[in-house]
Amino acid sequence: MAYSSLFTLSLCFLVLFPGCLAQLEQVTDQSQRQQQQRFQTECRINNLNAQEPGRSVESEAGLSEYWNRNDEQFRCAGVDLVRHTIQRRGLLLPSFSNAPQLVYVVQGRGLHGAAIPGCPETFQSESSSQFRGEQGSQRMSRDQHQKVREIREGDIVAMPAGVAHWIYNDGESQLIVMILYDTSNQANQLDENARRFYLAGNPRQQQQGGRQRRRESRQGSRSQSRSRSQSPEERERSQQSGSNLFNGFDEEFLADSFNIDNELAMRIQNRDDQRGIIVTVEDELRVLSPQSRGEEREERGWDRDNGVEETFCTMRLKHNIADPQRADVYNERGGRITSLNSLNLPILRYIQLSAERGVLYRNALVAPLYNMNCHSVIYVIRGNARLQVVGENGQNVFDGEVREGQVLTVPQNFAVIKKAGNQGFEWVAFKTNDNAMINPLAGRLSTMRALPEDVLINAYRIDRQEARSLKYNRDETTLFSSDSSGSSRRRD
Amino acid sequence: MAYSSLFTLSLCFLVLFPGCLAQLEQVTDQSQRQQQQRFQTECRINNLNAQEPGRSVESEAGLSEYWNRNDEQFRCAGVDLVRHTIQRRGLLLPSFSNAPQLVYVVQGRGLHGAAIPGCPETFQSESSSQFRGEQGSQRMSRDQHQKVREIREGDIVAMPAGVAHWIYNDGESQLIVMILYDTSNQANQLDENARRFYLAGNPRQQQQGGRQRRRESRQGSRSQSRSRSQSPEERERSQQSGSNLFNGFDEEFLADSFNIDNELAMRIQNRDDQRGIIVTVEDELRVLSPQSRGEEREERGWDRDNGVEETFCTMRLKHNIADPQRADVYNERGGRITSLNSLNLPILRYIQLSAERGVLYRNALVAPLYNMNCHSVIYVIRGNARLQVVGENGQNVFDGEVREGQVLTVPQNFAVIKKAGNQGFEWVAFKTNDNAMINPLAGRLSTMRALPEDVLINAYRIDRQEARSLKYNRDETTLFSSDSSGSSRRRD
Amino acid sequence: MAYSSLFTLSLCFLVLFPGCLAQLEQVTDQSQRQQQQRFQTECRINNLNAQEPGRSVESEAGLSEYWNRNDEQFRCAGVDLVRHTIQRRGLLLPSFSNAPQLVYVVQGRGLHGAAIPGCPETFQSESSSQFRGEQGSQRMSRDQHQKVREIREGDIVAMPAGVAHWIYNDGESQLIVMILYDTSNQANQLDENARRFYLAGNPRQQQQGGRQRRRESRQGSRSQSRSRSQSPEERERSQQSGSNLFNGFDEEFLADSFNIDNELAMRIQNRDDQRGIIVTVEDELRVLSPQSRGEEREERGWDRDNGVEETFCTMRLKHNIADPQRADVYNERGGRITSLNSLNLPILRYIQLSAERGVLYRNALVAPLYNMNCHSVIYVIRGNARLQVVGENGQNVFDGEVREGQVLTVPQNFAVIKKAGNQGFEWVAFKTNDNAMINPLAGRLSTMRALPEDVLINAYRIDRQEARSLKYNRDETTLFSSDSSGSSRRRD
Repeated sequence: MAYSSLFTLSLCFLVLFPGCLAQLEQVTDQSQRQQQQRFQTECRINNLNAQEPGRSVESEAGLSEYWNRNDEQFRCAGVDLVRHTIQRRGLLLPSFSNAPQLVYVVQGRGLHGAAIPGCPETFQSESSSQFRGEQGSQRMSRDQHQKVREIREGDIVAMPAGVAHWIYNDGESQLIVMILYDTSNQANQLDENARRFYLAGNPRQQQQGGRQRRRESRQGSRSQSRSRSQSPEERERSQQSGSNLFNGFDEEFLADSFNIDNELAMRIQNRDDQRGIIVTVEDELRVLSPQSRGEEREERGWDRDNGVEETFCTMRLKHNIADPQRADVYNERGGRITSLNSLNLPILRYIQLSAERGVLYRNALVAPLYNMNCHSVIYVIRGNARLQVVGENGQNVFDGEVREGQVLTVPQNFAVIKKAGNQGFEWVAFKTNDNAMINPLAGRLSTMRALPEDVLINAYRIDRQEARSLKYNRDETTLFSSDSSGSSRRRD
Repeated sequence: MAYSSLFTLSLCFLVLFPGCLAQLEQVTDQSQRQQQQRFQTECRINNLNAQEPGRSVESEAGLSEYWNRNDEQFRCAGVDLVRHTIQRRGLLLPSFSNAPQLVYVVQGRGLHGAAIPGCPETFQSESSSQFRGEQGSQRMSRDQHQKVREIREGDIVAMPAGVAHWIYNDGESQLIVMILYDTSNQANQLDENARRFYLAGNPRQQQQGGRQRRRESRQGSRSQSRSRSQSPEERERSQQSGSNLFNGFDEEFLADSFNIDNELAMRIQNRDDQRGIIVTVEDELRVLSPQSRGEEREERGWDRDNGVEETFCTMRLKHNIADPQRADVYNERGGRITSLNSLNLPILRYIQLSAERGVLYRNALVAPLYNMNCHSVIYVIRGNARLQVVGENGQNVFDGEVREGQVLTVPQNFAVIKKAGNQGFEWVAFKTNDNAMINPLAGRLSTMRALPEDVLINAYRIDRQEARSLKYNRDETTLFSSDSSGSSRRRD
Repeated sequence: MAYSSLFTLSLCFLVLFPGCLAQLEQVTDQSQRQQQQRFQTECRINNLNAQEPGRSVESEAGLSEYWNRNDEQFRCAGVDLVRHTIQRRGLLLPSFSNAPQLVYVVQGRGLHGAAIPGCPETFQSESSSQFRGEQGSQRMSRDQHQKVREIREGDIVAMPAGVAHWIYNDGESQLIVMILYDTSNQANQLDENARRFYLAGNPRQQQQGGRQRRRESRQGSRSQSRSRSQSPEERERSQQSGSNLFNGFDEEFLADSFNIDNELAMRIQNRDDQRGIIVTVEDELRVLSPQSRGEEREERGWDRDNGVEETFCTMRLKHNIADPQRADVYNERGGRITSLNSLNLPILRYIQLSAERGVLYRNALVAPLYNMNCHSVIYVIRGNARLQVVGENGQNVFDGEVREGQVLTVPQNFAVIKKAGNQGFEWVAFKTNDNAMINPLAGRLSTMRALPEDVLINAYRIDRQEARSLKYNRDETTLFSSDSSGSSRRRD
């Protein structure tokens, strides 16, 4: 016993800085995916409801809608959800959070910039010719900043906790993003509340207690809002409610830190800013960007994934999961499902989240299944479906329709059946494990097939023929077409 | 989806004991054992009591006894305990849980089947000749299902969270299994309650609040219980109390999902089933099984452990710890201890649990020791012993006898001395770390020996001779014989 | 600091899908640093206060001062703090804890011994000639014990949970050590309270509820205190309050376990010991020790760090972070910062903690920054500084001076600016991650530089010239000199 302790302990540490053998890291790396641990939650769920946002806040150039984090399903899953609708030329100001985020681009296209600590500014320019968004004006000649990524409908962007990022709509239509904050994540050492730290703006509507739908009068012109005249009451107010991180520092301290004058220090505190967290960019936002767009670069990214030159700073943060070509499960009469996990997008290993996007054709079904090792937070992108969710003791906790824009959480180990409505059903599911595993109860890879016939016969008190029906009548995998249902069912 | 699960899982575990390179992976793997994190618990333990089951529920073919999960010691350790006594030809119906499980076979022999998501049905047959339990009847000709394991007294079976499994008694005597659910485990993202999801049967006695000892009248014959006549009240009742997972779904949905008719769909809901969770198999349960039994296959299993073909699907789930030949610590006048950890049974790495089995001869002692990195949940298999447990501030929290069938938890860092009674003492201890480490305070590998004499002299205000007695008078390791005690003690 | 973040981060992810190159285990090892999970905490911090110890307890040869663990900042960070002042020839008795510890030597020199379970006694002697502290007396001729380490001002010593250790002052002045217990650490499976288990002494002042400053009358001579006459009341009292671990066992059991007589068994219970937890050593404490001292051995240790022969038992537990030569960030007009993380001291990987030591010259600044992945618990060693700390919504939670001997916690993601006072400022910061990462908001490696100019222009409604001032006016890294401040600020 004591010997084995010694042995174990020595072996264990022997290996912390060991020799130099091959290919071990990758697997080692994977082998710990179960290391994830989450905050303690309370999951006494008797009844689920499909939820729409409980609170919305308008900004100058967009709308932010927040789901009620106190809803039982979100408390159980330990997540927080926000949907931003960003107008053309709208800029969602840079912020970071104590929770890792998954951003799903529901609609539109834009730019996403992350400021990763310790990484160099790798986008550099000497002349204006390479600038995106340049519209003939030549007043700017150089800049350097960290990588900026183009995002478009169907992209998932992964953001570690504590990394500041911003989003800009450079498309022609609205840019809609759905963000999940995983507040129960191991990376969060504060508490179970998602905290958003803004580096700019004056997002006072974001305060925790706020529930009101504010419609800010945006009469304040840019020049006016720059005036330094602020009454003590105004200042008091802006400090009680939310404002950006710099607002909490003394102007003199800020001036000292940045080696700037006090006036500019006060300006970055944005105390009299009425624009909210999504602001209008007057001209186009000009950032450095390589000329080619989209797919091609992404493919190159794939090649690079396995190279030794990969580092955190050059790591891919996004992946498109709407492309039908990338489906992992496809049934021509059922639909398709694309899974994104840490094998596809390695940074997910780091933030312990994954996602799936599904398309279900009209009246088709997703097999009854449960998530083995995570919660699944489903956001409906299009269409509608009827869902049934069953928990411990066979208790039905949800039986109803979910529609576009709604969210429903299926807790770990709870079983669910999805059946698309007449318009079909499209969804994205955020999962609280970097390699989410499902367990179908029917179909080709199901528990029923794993069990011996005699177990089924005795468990359900059925005959051998019925047991074989249970095991083999559905030969599809996860996605089931509906046409086999109805009166013509086999009992072969 | 299911495919990728399989793929991921295999990759992941492929790597736990991989190729032929220097055994580093294995150790690397071990090196993270401290990564385990558990749910927050409250451990203000002033007094421990050896506990027997607080509640028992009879089924058609057995008895299930539940320890009170609200007992302070189990809340602190974050575990839940159940003991099933399965009659000859009894089948414990398939279920899964949000917590990983360790199953210890206290007595008897049987079959254990697990339905691991994404794994193939590897037991296949064309003819009836290879079926276990075949008794002359030839009506069945083929089946295929996942691996079925023979279990016998002294086996530990490890079950990850979310994997459904069943147990069948094919021996001649009662089969008794003791199951620990590690509800504080990282794999559980729900809350600290163990939830059991049954795939069949109508285990309504399993409900959380239930405390009553029910004695179900089992007059309902199989044919009768198949009748579909169920009053609304009956149905209401069966839904409020526990029932199997399918009971929470609509029949039509189930029929659709399995492509079966509604009648069969209702049958798998088992709504009018009165048999409980352990049911009688009419004939023998016939499952596919290789001809040879037991030891030989197990040994082959050992060879395979380090091969690259090892995957989650073929991973060993069981290990016998009662075999005296496998003792890790042995003292011919003291007894023996066999430890099972993730070096012996690699899946324990995944579920972060381990176990030890001990045999203490009459009046022998286990050295005063504490568990460095885990709780130890002791189940007494045979005999009795006097235990003393000491916590913070030298507070004695237990001083008494423990007897066969009782459970006592020794919390992390609490010191314990065990002294066997006149009949000797046999126990199994479940430990909440995949490589549990102990720290003996006396004997060959003890803290006392690690300290310089001068520290002992000044700490205890004793002379050098006494310090040496403390360090060297016991030269045994962990297990101490009793014959050196008494009047003849040395003070050499 | 920022550099090392970059380095660490890059190394770390380099390895997630790497080729087949060498030295990967080390990084692999690093790559799991995010695996850390902590107990759930509550961090609704509206106001921080620099804290001094709330309670102090005198012992025979020293003073122990305890910070109030219920202070909001310590509950949020999940840590517990103690400062021991050990007199010349004082011995802090061996104890272990359910929480890993970082020990910082604020002043003086001494010996530190750890009793690591399962490790052999590697310090052995046949003759007295090699004993440290030998002063002419020849009555002792041999001893063997585990490694004893010399410690001196500036050393960090890392102690895993459950490992017993002691400290002895063999220097000429007071030995002052500051100890952080990381009670939220994954290694702690009990609850959020730090528990100290003493192996000797009678530390009844250490009890949880105690707040009084006791001044124990130490009239009890050694011979007197050995008397076995103890009234039932006395015994009752000593058991209710804290005492050493052996006190909770029956004398007979102890005698049996150690194979000693009952008298000696009672002696190690130290029931009538009035000396507290720091006791006076009558002569010098003699332990085995190699002849050379300090630096040389430490350097050899460095070479050994990467060798395969490294095991837990021979692993380095200490590292000096006060040596100016080891500074990681140095600004000749600002100061210096030395970081200690699991790359420098690998055992930190195991206990998931790290530390930094900083020296700030008079009026110099530490850049506004936030800790990405941990809390930072700052202890002021010398001098004073003005700090501002800002939390969510730009809320200022601290604006004031911190002085020698005070502690201030900066929670994860909260931004802080430090400005040294007229005497300069020296601190040690304990961090709750084995590779703490900071994110400076100003200076060479700051978020401001990572953002495109157009984002700054639109976010803050400033012109391009001002945006460039924000990005480039400070070209220093993390540590800023003060001379550039004042009226001469550039707006170039």
